[in-house]
Amino acid sequence: MKKLECDQTINYFTPDLVSVMTVDLNEQFKVETHDCYGGQVQDEHTSRWDIDRSIINLATGPIYINGLKAGDVVKLDIDNIELGSSGIMMTAKGLGVLGDTIQNESTKILSVEDGFVKFSERLCLPVKPMIGVIGLATKEDKIHTASPGCHGGNMDTTDITTGNSLYLPVFQDGGLLAMGDLHATMGDGELDGTGVEIDGEVTLTASKVEGLSILNPIVESPDAFFFIASAKTLDEAIKIASQNTVDHLTLVLKEDYEMAYRLLSACCDIRISQVVNPLVTVRVRVPKTLLPNLI
Amino acid sequence: MKKLECDQTINYFTPDLVSVMTVDLNEQFKVETHDCYGGQVQDEHTSRWDIDRSIINLATGPIYINGLKAGDVVKLDIDNIELGSSGIMMTAKGLGVLGDTIQNESTKILSVEDGFVKFSERLCLPVKPMIGVIGLATKEDKIHTASPGCHGGNMDTTDITTGNSLYLPVFQDGGLLAMGDLHATMGDGELDGTGVEIDGEVTLTASKVEGLSILNPIVESPDAFFFIASAKTLDEAIKIASQNTVDHLTLVLKEDYEMAYRLLSACCDIRISQVVNPLVTVRVRVPKTLLPNLI
Repeated sequence: MKKLECDQTINYFTPDLVSVMTVDLNEQFKVETHDCYGGQVQDEHTSRWDIDRSIINLATGPIYINGLKAGDVVKLDIDNIELGSSGIMMTAKGLGVLGDTIQNESTKILSVEDGFVKFSERLCLPVKPMIGVIGLATKEDKIHTASPGCHGGNMDTTDITTGNSLYLPVFQDGGLLAMGDLHATMGDGELDGTGVEIDGEVTLTASKVEGLSILNPIVESPDAFFFIASAKTLDEAIKIASQNTVDHLTLVLKEDYEMAYRLLSACCDIRISQVVNPLVTVRVRVPKTLLPNLI
Repeated sequence: MKKLECDQTINYFTPDLVSVMTVDLNEQFKVETHDCYGGQVQDEHTSRWDIDRSIINLATGPIYINGLKAGDVVKLDIDNIELGSSGIMMTAKGLGVLGDTIQNESTKILSVEDGFVKFSERLCLPVKPMIGVIGLATKEDKIHTASPGCHGGNMDTTDITTGNSLYLPVFQDGGLLAMGDLHATMGDGELDGTGVEIDGEVTLTASKVEGLSILNPIVESPDAFFFIASAKTLDEAIKIASQNTVDHLTLVLKEDYEMAYRLLSACCDIRISQVVNPLVTVRVRVPKTLLPNLI
């Protein structure tokens, strides 16, 4: 199986990415990723202020996917996420929703093994592996890998996990995929500004989706679709994700617009992905009892 | 079993509510509730503009719970929710997050039977019964039953459902409980401004919780606790719910503040209850793997 090592990384998603590996559609491949600090945190004496922030959220890639053209939609099956053996959490003044209440800054290295994160002698909590940053070359913009957008990027969405699939709009031929910023576990919101940040390896398979047009990323789990949107404010992101969902329901269920709006309100959940990146990210969960198939 | 009929209602939660029924601690009782329109919508010709908004979100009560004193915390076990046979959804210009896109206003009466809501000939979706409005007499304020707050009220939280328990701070002797605004189903956010609005009957049991002090409502489900907060903006509500959760984790888990903040971020989910009431409501989901007991 082809594997891209984590010495090949980008810090920006741009329109003119140059690929460092090529895979075919429906060919399984592996991607090795740094933790979000790019390996800069080696012990608990490293503080947030020691970090070179120009190389945070490095994404391994870009990978050219043969057969993808601009205007296509790609489906990325996340076949497996293998986590490293230790995760990092940094607590700092100003970081996260309660950042102004933090008195004691600290860096914690947490052991991750046998499916658990060891927070303390007493507290071991189950891993919930996920990919924080995953995206494609953009249409026009130069977007830092720490930020999310319609190209994907730092969506920090817990549903981007093993067994699920991510649909992304393709803006450049070959897609030019890159990813990084794995979390051993993270709650919706990423409320203190970090998950359990960790390196690892992702196994994926890309396929092309015919007959689908999307403006923003969508995730598929066994029982739901998630319509993702990022914006400057939560209110704005909620509006975009809701609009994308209602437009999609109108089209696929062949119902009128008002019916789709009622179904959104009665059966779909708005969820928060993260509130701590340059743009915030939300998603609408549409159960498959309502929408069995995306097309 | 004692039962309060829905001809006894309030439109405001205030400090000086006068009870119309009395129950004992640990005594099961029933409460009959109107739909949120107070029975004003009899057919699909009734538009939103025909509704007398001074009598929306009527809450059946107040019920004096013997043995509760100001300063206590009450636990309300929601033993059962029986739904009426038809629900209402109104779509109107300006209503909900996409209200400015609505061209055709409409009122739909939806049949609710055998555990399903019939949205159309083709679309039947499972009921997920919940209580929209449930609260106690306030400490000082006069708060409309359409608004949420630390007293409870119109929290529109999907987890306030059969089998779960709601913890509320008691501000006045006897608590003075009232409830209404059931939904046959509603998605997190209540994005178009309504759930499937319906009348019904709720069966509850109240008990007093010793050794617990809370500032805002908490819901307990079989696998999690939900720390609820309402505020003018989502950002503000998220901050309050996060602060309440971190303070509680610090206290109960006997961990330091920074550890509690890390656990919030790594293991707890911020969820949106509703974004369409006078104050918006969110909740932090704390899994019982992290917090097995509230005290």
